[in-house]
Amino acid sequence: MEKVAIIGMGMTKFGECWDKGLRDLIAEAGAKAVTSAGIDGKDIQAIYGGNMSAGRFIGQEHVGALIADAIGLSPIPSTRVEAACASGGLALREAYLSIAGGIYDVVVAGGVEKMTDVYTEQVSLTLGGAGDQEWEVFHGATFPSLYAMMARRHMHDYGTTEEQLAAVAVKNHSNGAKNPLAQFPFEITLEQVMKSSKVAEPLKLLDCSPITDGAAAVILAKESFAKKVCDNPVWITGSGHATDTLALDDRRSMTTLDATKLATKVAMKQAGITPKQVDLAEVHDCFTIAEICAVEDIGFVKKGEGGKAEADGMFDLNSDIPVNTSGGLKACGHPVGATGIKQAVEISWQLRGEADKRQVKDANIGLAHNVGGSGATAVVHVFSREVR
Amino acid sequence: MEKVAIIGMGMTKFGECWDKGLRDLIAEAGAKAVTSAGIDGKDIQAIYGGNMSAGRFIGQEHVGALIADAIGLSPIPSTRVEAACASGGLALREAYLSIAGGIYDVVVAGGVEKMTDVYTEQVSLTLGGAGDQEWEVFHGATFPSLYAMMARRHMHDYGTTEEQLAAVAVKNHSNGAKNPLAQFPFEITLEQVMKSSKVAEPLKLLDCSPITDGAAAVILAKESFAKKVCDNPVWITGSGHATDTLALDDRRSMTTLDATKLATKVAMKQAGITPKQVDLAEVHDCFTIAEICAVEDIGFVKKGEGGKAEADGMFDLNSDIPVNTSGGLKACGHPVGATGIKQAVEISWQLRGEADKRQVKDANIGLAHNVGGSGATAVVHVFSREVR
Repeated sequence: MEKVAIIGMGMTKFGECWDKGLRDLIAEAGAKAVTSAGIDGKDIQAIYGGNMSAGRFIGQEHVGALIADAIGLSPIPSTRVEAACASGGLALREAYLSIAGGIYDVVVAGGVEKMTDVYTEQVSLTLGGAGDQEWEVFHGATFPSLYAMMARRHMHDYGTTEEQLAAVAVKNHSNGAKNPLAQFPFEITLEQVMKSSKVAEPLKLLDCSPITDGAAAVILAKESFAKKVCDNPVWITGSGHATDTLALDDRRSMTTLDATKLATKVAMKQAGITPKQVDLAEVHDCFTIAEICAVEDIGFVKKGEGGKAEADGMFDLNSDIPVNTSGGLKACGHPVGATGIKQAVEISWQLRGEADKRQVKDANIGLAHNVGGSGATAVVHVFSREVR
Repeated sequence: MEKVAIIGMGMTKFGECWDKGLRDLIAEAGAKAVTSAGIDGKDIQAIYGGNMSAGRFIGQEHVGALIADAIGLSPIPSTRVEAACASGGLALREAYLSIAGGIYDVVVAGGVEKMTDVYTEQVSLTLGGAGDQEWEVFHGATFPSLYAMMARRHMHDYGTTEEQLAAVAVKNHSNGAKNPLAQFPFEITLEQVMKSSKVAEPLKLLDCSPITDGAAAVILAKESFAKKVCDNPVWITGSGHATDTLALDDRRSMTTLDATKLATKVAMKQAGITPKQVDLAEVHDCFTIAEICAVEDIGFVKKGEGGKAEADGMFDLNSDIPVNTSGGLKACGHPVGATGIKQAVEISWQLRGEADKRQVKDANIGLAHNVGGSGATAVVHVFSREVR
């Protein structure tokens, strides 16, 4: 297999972008990524774009062709992939595989979502499409309620507390405060989280990631091209993708995401690393409980110890394994189709030493973990400064 | 690159399947394909599923994981791809590339759409998502109206007549009458087409493909596996994918689909063939004018001669290049995400000599042509009985 590097990266400011449509977001992120790579648009041979639900958010399907059109790259092949909130991570994986398999030399992997052009209720219904329409959503389940059940069960089984959940949000806002592209670039206190309005108990408003517009893009290239044009490529050394039942109640556990475990195992085996070797990670914190499950399922801590580890600061910016230095989905924002690519952008900036006030020292190996729905899809990538 | 074969295929009856949901359609097509291949589900390493708009049709996104769940293949990687009405063709291509690139050995490529659970008006709006929401649909354009403009221009430039358009529908119904899985398995007369109610002049009801539920699946395998388990594999010898502007008015021509031309060129070059060597083709006849443009852009006839060729019977079942032996989108039906895979199923049956009453004699090389929107995506595949 060809070795694959990220040679350029870019993202829009995440937030409520009232002045920007889907095309604008795509064009901005795409142009930043191409500029960052210092290549010509003509070098790019294909596009993989992650988008969850432009159809329901803005009435627009056919998003692959739209991306190529918006960034002036028609007639090259452009493929939209969708795996709910893991659409971005999956676009990264498909782009990676296409180069690893020798199909293309240089590919854009992008992600985009425009979520704020519809009423909030419609956003909830649309996001429900990430779950099981027939067996969950139709009966009234929303994503906060599904994750609330996961949180309750985690509290029951492992003694996790609401304060430990809240600690995740406090940490991620602390990181987000250092990220000028974050939707919420400010700190919050534990008390603010605990006193925020209840959404689906035990989850409160500040346990939940927001509704966000945004786009992100990375340029991937095979080794020979990357070394020719780029002084500081970031290598993708492992890629894992796994699925699980769409409905939460069908699974053997409500607190362990088997898809995360399997995708991590595959990616780490390919990269030849163990969890201890990871210097920093972006994980899928759509709700605070999700980050706690993630750090356990990835293997940073044992099952059940995630809540305490978070509260103890084990994943803080200056710890051994900083998690969600971008601010995560919670503070950086969660334009669902873009999040997986944003994670790759953040890890790339960190490994290149370009993360400014939130820079992690001596970051050599990074991991990105992107989840669709309540865990029916997980995509995990390992990144390294060194080619292997 | 690895050589790739289709070793199994299956599809549901196309039509208004009131008794079947998305899961049922997927499971039926998937089971038929696996049974046809004579393999075990455990042999399958990944899934690529084409679906245009389950989000808007039935509130369900995350279709990749749902497919894996529905056919009992979780936790393997399952990827939904979307390119409007070319979603199926694109799923076939991504599955093909994943084996050609050495990523997987055995992969399912499927396509599914459940379109009849919403009001017809909502179907039109949803299909509009294949066009340009901002520059076409918002201003009132529907797909019949866009293709009607293409037809008018073709009539203006080349003297194509409404009777020639109608001849396409008559031919495809004649073929569909021989296909027990077709939505409309009956013949129609030229007079019936000409007298059918006007939808968007010059297109009448019987110039238009219908709203359809259905699913189709093929099993792809690399050469060594295919030869081990299958006596009559169908080889994919060429694959092309190209994009164009999303909006029709942005293009240099309203009657030539540049994406079709480019995708065909790429696929034929890879397969080492010319249009003359094609024994039969499934082309994208969402409207009768689309088939006329397709046979021209693929190169079966010169530009402008498609209408006359159709009326002269050049693409009839017993001609040198039978087109749309399945009945095409017109008579077999058009469950948008499934159509591209159904084309591959039909070509496979024909090349294996399993097409019963519509069997084409001595069929060695087939071509499938799948279009998204008004031509912003085209995917073309070449199939052969001989490995090359």
